[in-house]
Amino acid sequence: MPLDEFRFSTDVRVRFAETDAQGVAHNAEFLVWYEVGRIDYLARFRGGYKGLQEEGYEALTIESHVRYLAPAYFDDVLRVHLRCSEIKGARFRYDYAIERLSDNVIVADGWTKHAVVDRTTHRPTRFPAWLAEAIASAEC
Amino acid sequence: MPLDEFRFSTDVRVRFAETDAQGVAHNAEFLVWYEVGRIDYLARFRGGYKGLQEEGYEALTIESHVRYLAPAYFDDVLRVHLRCSEIKGARFRYDYAIERLSDNVIVADGWTKHAVVDRTTHRPTRFPAWLAEAIASAEC
Amino acid sequence: MPLDEFRFSTDVRVRFAETDAQGVAHNAEFLVWYEVGRIDYLARFRGGYKGLQEEGYEALTIESHVRYLAPAYFDDVLRVHLRCSEIKGARFRYDYAIERLSDNVIVADGWTKHAVVDRTTHRPTRFPAWLAEAIASAEC
Amino acid sequence: MPLDEFRFSTDVRVRFAETDAQGVAHNAEFLVWYEVGRIDYLARFRGGYKGLQEEGYEALTIESHVRYLAPAYFDDVLRVHLRCSEIKGARFRYDYAIERLSDNVIVADGWTKHAVVDRTTHRPTRFPAWLAEAIASAEC
Repeated sequence: MPLDEFRFSTDVRVRFAETDAQGVAHNAEFLVWYEVGRIDYLARFRGGYKGLQEEGYEALTIESHVRYLAPAYFDDVLRVHLRCSEIKGARFRYDYAIERLSDNVIVADGWTKHAVVDRTTHRPTRFPAWLAEAIASAEC
Repeated sequence: MPLDEFRFSTDVRVRFAETDAQGVAHNAEFLVWYEVGRIDYLARFRGGYKGLQEEGYEALTIESHVRYLAPAYFDDVLRVHLRCSEIKGARFRYDYAIERLSDNVIVADGWTKHAVVDRTTHRPTRFPAWLAEAIASAEC
Repeated sequence: MPLDEFRFSTDVRVRFAETDAQGVAHNAEFLVWYEVGRIDYLARFRGGYKGLQEEGYEALTIESHVRYLAPAYFDDVLRVHLRCSEIKGARFRYDYAIERLSDNVIVADGWTKHAVVDRTTHRPTRFPAWLAEAIASAEC
Repeated sequence: MPLDEFRFSTDVRVRFAETDAQGVAHNAEFLVWYEVGRIDYLARFRGGYKGLQEEGYEALTIESHVRYLAPAYFDDVLRVHLRCSEIKGARFRYDYAIERLSDNVIVADGWTKHAVVDRTTHRPTRFPAWLAEAIASAEC
């Protein structure tokens, strides 16, 4: 997905604790950065993820995919581009591209799939309509 | 991939530090457990991953995929089943299924792709023949 | 504290994900290994930490201290020696020494302090008497 | 140490991945935030930590201490106040206080001790004079 299809991004700086003995950011950290992106993405809408939780929703991650295209190094500033690319019933999907700002290299891309569940019963529940609409208009 | 196609597994116990505020193991930890599995898998062969490093090789993760099928909880003992399912030039692939031992539920499955590189130049290099053969005979 | 004053230990193997770009285990991981040790320590007593939670208790960490005495490397097998060295009202303390098994070097030592709280009110509550007694007799 | 004795701070937001099943930030994460603070602290001086590495230095953590004074929750914005409070030979020390911005509660404080080593030999080496002077004048 070309970068100009993303309308939202959030920046992270690679922490020393996130590197490994190969001298690069560890492959599991990219899922953490995806998540930082999602939280920040939702923060633009009425109360964000905490607001959703307070309304009785919880979002589960049900699938994740990362392509590691180039190593990311300690102290690199990475721009996590993301978009909510699909909402269908209880399910939704995000696409990502992670760009190093210093040289505009895409270090990783991928996607995650999620399900909205009721916070107490943990049963799948419809994605809140107001948020689906807000996202739809933000992504168009 | 059905469990009986895996000939190797390693066990991990979900650490408290690996859980998150949803009360379940965080989605990024599964990539760490995959890696624990790979290290343990290679340990059966001449020197294991450290042996490979000493011979001048490094393995990079170039793609990862996880399907989260059921939540994993603090203190669950998880059996990481894995197999090296493809070796081709510098590339190789592992498939995984993570089973909770107490109830035999598959909590996650997926795969990772890797590339062997020369440890100093970081250029792709052929997967060491002796190891490819050892793996081939272990997997048959 | 000399090693022979510890009556309990648990082993961990340094994961690749736990190393950093200095090529050694990251300083924050030692607190995770302390915790793995505490969970394992409690597992010997009626239901362990999960049992305590089910009885309505939660244990908070209120202080931690680590002296890093030698680097720990990827794949090192570390023996986390620990003892519950003090129980007083709602408070208790553990002492630790982490030994690399291959050369018996103490790579770190230190201690943590904790408070028992009621799981719902989060107010400090007396350390359960049955467990204090069980620990006292295990440590003598 | 009262907050007005700190002349430098950096902000972090508690990530979901940093919480645990108690619903609070995990005790090991505070050491990661300390480190984020140190990196940011050094960034003000000629090249920062990466500059130090390029000049052939490495800094090891030799001791860490955290007092957990109040729970930190998902999405809390935390201000990591820190100062380099001592430089002596190869050794230096940082003091920290971590403040939640929404209510100005100090959620943790503590200190770390470090040693400067030569990057290749890993032997202790004098703290670079130009940096000691720069820090001394920044802290006065």
